[in-house]
Amino acid sequence: MAQINVGILGFGTVGAGTVEILLSNADTIADRVGAPVVIRKIADLDIASDRGVSVDPNMLTTDAGEVIDDPAIDVVVELIGGLDKAREFMLLAMEKGKHVVTANKALLAEYGRDLYSAARKHGVHIGFEASVGGGIPILGSLEGGLAANHIQSMVGILNGTSNYILTKMTREALPYDKAVEEAVRLGFAEDPPTLDVNGTDAAHKLAILLSVATGTPIDFQSLHREGIETLSPEDILFAADLGYQVKLLAIARLGTDGVEARVHPAMIPQNHILANVNEAYNAIYLEGDFVGANLFYGLGAGRRPTGSAVVSDIMDIGRKVLRGIKGPDHWIECGEHTSRPVVLRPMDQLRSIYYFRFSALDRPGVLSRISGILGENDISVSSVIQKGRKTSGAVPVVIITHEALERNVFRAVSSIDELDIVTRKTVIIRVEEGFPGADTPHDRED
Amino acid sequence: MAQINVGILGFGTVGAGTVEILLSNADTIADRVGAPVVIRKIADLDIASDRGVSVDPNMLTTDAGEVIDDPAIDVVVELIGGLDKAREFMLLAMEKGKHVVTANKALLAEYGRDLYSAARKHGVHIGFEASVGGGIPILGSLEGGLAANHIQSMVGILNGTSNYILTKMTREALPYDKAVEEAVRLGFAEDPPTLDVNGTDAAHKLAILLSVATGTPIDFQSLHREGIETLSPEDILFAADLGYQVKLLAIARLGTDGVEARVHPAMIPQNHILANVNEAYNAIYLEGDFVGANLFYGLGAGRRPTGSAVVSDIMDIGRKVLRGIKGPDHWIECGEHTSRPVVLRPMDQLRSIYYFRFSALDRPGVLSRISGILGENDISVSSVIQKGRKTSGAVPVVIITHEALERNVFRAVSSIDELDIVTRKTVIIRVEEGFPGADTPHDRED
Repeated sequence: MAQINVGILGFGTVGAGTVEILLSNADTIADRVGAPVVIRKIADLDIASDRGVSVDPNMLTTDAGEVIDDPAIDVVVELIGGLDKAREFMLLAMEKGKHVVTANKALLAEYGRDLYSAARKHGVHIGFEASVGGGIPILGSLEGGLAANHIQSMVGILNGTSNYILTKMTREALPYDKAVEEAVRLGFAEDPPTLDVNGTDAAHKLAILLSVATGTPIDFQSLHREGIETLSPEDILFAADLGYQVKLLAIARLGTDGVEARVHPAMIPQNHILANVNEAYNAIYLEGDFVGANLFYGLGAGRRPTGSAVVSDIMDIGRKVLRGIKGPDHWIECGEHTSRPVVLRPMDQLRSIYYFRFSALDRPGVLSRISGILGENDISVSSVIQKGRKTSGAVPVVIITHEALERNVFRAVSSIDELDIVTRKTVIIRVEEGFPGADTPHDRED
Repeated sequence: MAQINVGILGFGTVGAGTVEILLSNADTIADRVGAPVVIRKIADLDIASDRGVSVDPNMLTTDAGEVIDDPAIDVVVELIGGLDKAREFMLLAMEKGKHVVTANKALLAEYGRDLYSAARKHGVHIGFEASVGGGIPILGSLEGGLAANHIQSMVGILNGTSNYILTKMTREALPYDKAVEEAVRLGFAEDPPTLDVNGTDAAHKLAILLSVATGTPIDFQSLHREGIETLSPEDILFAADLGYQVKLLAIARLGTDGVEARVHPAMIPQNHILANVNEAYNAIYLEGDFVGANLFYGLGAGRRPTGSAVVSDIMDIGRKVLRGIKGPDHWIECGEHTSRPVVLRPMDQLRSIYYFRFSALDRPGVLSRISGILGENDISVSSVIQKGRKTSGAVPVVIITHEALERNVFRAVSSIDELDIVTRKTVIIRVEEGFPGADTPHDRED
């Protein structure tokens, strides 16, 4: 009787989740795939620690080669993380004709092109649903139920750790450092959570989303990224006063004049559905040219949700193997479909709305000098909050602009920061208003 | 050169949207499928009206047989709606070896079993992503990225018309009739919108969701359904006072002791993400045993979103045809996977929280008589609102219960409604609190 044999590299958090699901839901998985999916080997440097799942000790090995070289294994699942070893193992496995599944967003974002060509060269499948949004089935949907569309924009909350920290800062008016401490203590953040909070992890995921949406591998290094480390509860409170929530957003806008792709903290309207994505949840809000707005929401990390996505990829590949379908089977792996180059627009050409918090001495004429420089740089002001005198002698002046050019904004603020009346570096946060409304009537067919 | 030939039955709203997408996005669709997808024939009784898309008049016919019998056509798309003719045409097309795509939820909910067996018998594919949630890729996700899970619950806002009407009633405190008038005037509702507002359309979609999630065709007639016609702005206001929003929900809970499936208006906590799904938007909130909570959100109807789902099904089938994969390819169509019967639990065994609005004479002892009867029926009270005297002599007494048994609730309320102090039939609305929290820490792996 046919069966699908799986080998797993990496028995950490996601590895253990994957094994747990394959064992607990084995009957259902067999039904849905059309044959049993069987774990043959699990390789990890540490095969002694208890992972909370019971596996036959004979299945465990410290030698990745035993998985990669096992002729009986159909699918190799890479869950060791990191770049060099993971890449080497995946390429070796594909060379040996094995299909591969990975949750490794860094690897895909940095070396995706190599992996996709290897899959093409060796006629194998590569599954990576788990790499973006944990258990959220976003990549499959882009290539599945949304396939008829040109994706026009994607706005994602893609890093659960940052979102958890921002939720804490917002709800409890905690400073950044305290919120991080809390997140680490409760198991929502690593210590230190560098790649999560500095925007790198979200940018990895944005590169993958954009690659799948366009069918073209995107150079991760060229995405603009900023993190949440410099945000203060003060700005989060001002945002709330102005009707906004602060989120770490990964944004892609695909226009006829190029593609914008960037990760940075942004203010979004409080009544937008993305503003209600809190704690460690992730979400991707996208617009297609025909489907309109769609939101996907769920847990973006963790043993069970990420394991769920890994196992769904194994099942998909299992069904294909049983039907004799050669890989690869994603658009992105199909060289001939990547004819349309994706041209990223330089960040200084961005047009956006901006929030500024100036720290200025409380003297007459301050607002006029600041707004004068803004005006000279073609930046017009939409609203101003200037609150009473502070003991320190400096007061915050908060300004929201109309749409302005990023280049002008940074030039203006750098001039303003040189003024003798300005006591500290100005805080700049972009404001994202460009979401489609929900009020447009549409043709009815139910 | 290979191409996928499509014939369309029904050139109404969704038919025109489907044609528009196939024409506008032809190049991208060809890239993604691997061959051009070409419309060969469109059948409709009315081939004279302008649909806002330009098609070769020679392509149009009033004879469905010209589509079904055309040997060159690979995929027949059924978009005529209704039951008998649609069923006949789909079965005929499958008999002739054609793959079929449909957006017809009534047909799938009522005759799904026949259609799936026909697909099995003739080895053809059947696509129906468009039947639930319009452009939202929920069915593909259940069989795709969520496939590793047992779905434990699904709570959907599946009818855009009802949701639009409820949003109007909530925001503008409009009575039901006025809100319906507005919805009809603005193109959000048919006149009259009977199947939308009485819960039938949502129940059709729930039957399909449940069929796909379990791999077992569900008997639509056995689902409990209630509509929104009897809701009043008064109850919506009381709900808001109590921290709830009123939504028409389609609910399925899949437990070890059977499956609950029901459509009715319900109060949900205002801070739950589903409470923020407004206007004509649809959403499906689900929980899987490993993935946890997931939400899908988008436009559930309309020419373009529904057309997007129809074309995605055509593309999926096109890719399979080019790869020589025989149908059917959904779990639900695979007889051998339907071994686990789905046992629906009787509605009177439901345990829920309830909202009651009693209309009682403003006399001493009223609350004690009402709560006495509730107590006798094992229903305990969680909160009470009793507001001041009304000119009419009757006052509303609003009670929220703790969890109680549906059978007891209806017995108690029927006794209460017989009291001489009760002037009108009591309003009963179920309260859904059973959503998973977002605050549980989880294992981290990014």
